[in-house]
Amino acid sequence: MTRLVQKFGGTSVADVQRIRKAAEIAVAAVAEGHEVATVVSAMGHTTDHLISLAEQVTQQPDPRELDMLLTTGEQQSIALMSMAIQSLGGQARSFTGGQAGIITEHQHGFARIKEVRPDAVESSLKRGEIAVVAGFQGVSDHNELTTLGRGGSDTTAVALASALSAERCDIYTDVNGVYTADPRLLHEARKLTAVSYEEMLELAAAGAQVMNARSVELAMDTQVAVRVRSTFEPHDTGTLITHHLVSPEYTICGIACDMSHASLCLTTPMVDGSHSQLEGISGLFTRLKELGIVTDMVMLLAREDEPSQELAFTVEKRSLLRVQSIIEALDRELGHPKLTVDTDIARISVIGRGLTARPAVVADIFESLFSAAIPVQMVATGDIKVSALVPAKHARDAVKSIHNRFEL
Amino acid sequence: MTRLVQKFGGTSVADVQRIRKAAEIAVAAVAEGHEVATVVSAMGHTTDHLISLAEQVTQQPDPRELDMLLTTGEQQSIALMSMAIQSLGGQARSFTGGQAGIITEHQHGFARIKEVRPDAVESSLKRGEIAVVAGFQGVSDHNELTTLGRGGSDTTAVALASALSAERCDIYTDVNGVYTADPRLLHEARKLTAVSYEEMLELAAAGAQVMNARSVELAMDTQVAVRVRSTFEPHDTGTLITHHLVSPEYTICGIACDMSHASLCLTTPMVDGSHSQLEGISGLFTRLKELGIVTDMVMLLAREDEPSQELAFTVEKRSLLRVQSIIEALDRELGHPKLTVDTDIARISVIGRGLTARPAVVADIFESLFSAAIPVQMVATGDIKVSALVPAKHARDAVKSIHNRFEL
Repeated sequence: MTRLVQKFGGTSVADVQRIRKAAEIAVAAVAEGHEVATVVSAMGHTTDHLISLAEQVTQQPDPRELDMLLTTGEQQSIALMSMAIQSLGGQARSFTGGQAGIITEHQHGFARIKEVRPDAVESSLKRGEIAVVAGFQGVSDHNELTTLGRGGSDTTAVALASALSAERCDIYTDVNGVYTADPRLLHEARKLTAVSYEEMLELAAAGAQVMNARSVELAMDTQVAVRVRSTFEPHDTGTLITHHLVSPEYTICGIACDMSHASLCLTTPMVDGSHSQLEGISGLFTRLKELGIVTDMVMLLAREDEPSQELAFTVEKRSLLRVQSIIEALDRELGHPKLTVDTDIARISVIGRGLTARPAVVADIFESLFSAAIPVQMVATGDIKVSALVPAKHARDAVKSIHNRFEL
Repeated sequence: MTRLVQKFGGTSVADVQRIRKAAEIAVAAVAEGHEVATVVSAMGHTTDHLISLAEQVTQQPDPRELDMLLTTGEQQSIALMSMAIQSLGGQARSFTGGQAGIITEHQHGFARIKEVRPDAVESSLKRGEIAVVAGFQGVSDHNELTTLGRGGSDTTAVALASALSAERCDIYTDVNGVYTADPRLLHEARKLTAVSYEEMLELAAAGAQVMNARSVELAMDTQVAVRVRSTFEPHDTGTLITHHLVSPEYTICGIACDMSHASLCLTTPMVDGSHSQLEGISGLFTRLKELGIVTDMVMLLAREDEPSQELAFTVEKRSLLRVQSIIEALDRELGHPKLTVDTDIARISVIGRGLTARPAVVADIFESLFSAAIPVQMVATGDIKVSALVPAKHARDAVKSIHNRFEL
């Protein structure tokens, strides 16, 4: 008897009919002889609805109270999912994050899982029940309700799979696997049968919305095999994410496009106190880290021609107001910079292996964008990812031209 | 510095604007020098919406999973209420039933509070915060989420007031006190400035929807002074419920009308086995008690003229289907009775003190109904309550004629 963790995202439990579909998948896995724990997200747009309720009350909801509010979304899903399994004749028992032993750091809105104490879930599985666990949430040592941040249900699923020594963690979503590019953007995109943790990590971080990046990282660290598959086509085996690649057939595995980021550029005249400016920059990033605001494409450029320095980076648009107020607060330490913000951008990322060893890849990207007459605002290169910022309206063309260039 | 518990019901927190209104009341009490704990119900029709979601999944939701689902309603309210208090400049902290130390029996759907461990709420009050506690819910010793049944938030408020040794428990609702009859039914109804626990208990049990009966009982047992008042007219002092009546001016304190019950009548031919029928009746009531189904106006009548026996009682309409199936299951033990059900009835109750010592009261009730040409189906008398069942369409006239008769 093997053990499976199945995670059902928001679109997979968006209404009662879909919840029943997800319940059927879990019940079928039990009938095939598996022990099954499921991790469930909030129904469809529940989380967004709750956030909008909070924003009607106050523009700056207290993070603790926001967690108190948001955790109700998954709690509703687990109850309904358990009822659906029971109505199909299966046995089920729901668990809030706390009841499932998901212990997190004491930090609201983006807590990290410290530990999973799976005893209660283990007992449930041994009784032959399908354990239905609330994703995205946990409790701190002080019995405070916490949330793991957007996409946190994936992290719950992987952490639980690791704690239960599950054979595999199946991420059920509304697409049937990981593609070389977003199939909604690009019709020619090809589904991958397998992908390595490292590549998936970069794809996720670059905005491929299939899986949350932190959860891929955790899967890599804990060696949990993950399968991304579709709730609506349960017989499709989707894409396997693992160390052991079935066929390492490609160097460049995919292209991701992310429209949720904004770019910021701080231009500072270089006077004597350049050292104190670095202190300001360090202060800025410390503060961003404390608030759990993730930055990407960080670049620092000192211009030779005129004595000025430019600091550029991207952040998620939803963090933009907070980032701007932090910059204002650090205005003196940062040397009174001029701030330029661009929200109308797309970040196109090419993911592969050993890209730094292949400078031709970067050249190819530039060339394909150039030949499509797409202006490039910023480029950042890493070992397995090259990202370029382009105006949002060119996003689709940029993906298409790069995809064609590399014949994915 | 005195301590207050304020309870805000579903209509008082039905939307964001009303939540802000409730928050203002709590903040004002702190400004007047009180320590304040609030108990909050689910917003408006949230509970009904959640029940309907569950019923879309299955006609017989598991009680444990239903509690898991329903407890999210109050959890949303406490988060939003805390945010509202904070946005008014107050300090607040929300508590689920479990976090507030509301420990219940391990029984889903209608758990009784075993104990309140108020340490966390005490600490919150001492830090100067308004503690915002989820009504209607608690946890069992096994860390299972439980609910207290309809109107359970009142019980939470009274139990918390007792555990915190609060000076008073203010029940904020959509009416500004307890009336001699439902003012929506009868324009002449008069607001009482004070009423005894005993009378309020009978009024509540008889269907006056101002307060839940169990909570009044608890207030009586724990000597918590309760004030029923309006969220929308916070300067009105409402009705005080206490042992120490300010002016014991009346014998009959009010009339209640309840349309939520159905009457059942079981007619059994009296053959030899009348003893075994009593066993069946005893089995029936044991089963009803186990399921937490409350009966009222229970009467057993053996007819002399023809050898038959009639058992009549009322139950809440929402329990009717379950009661009917229990009766079917006990058909043999009950002597194959003929069952008559009437759902189109109103139960009119007259509440006062020492009614059995005043048989004239019962006579007056009959006379006033008779003179209004209202047929009476059943009458039950107690020490402080006389109830009569009349056809639903005559409810308003029955209340009016009795109210006039007693010059309330």
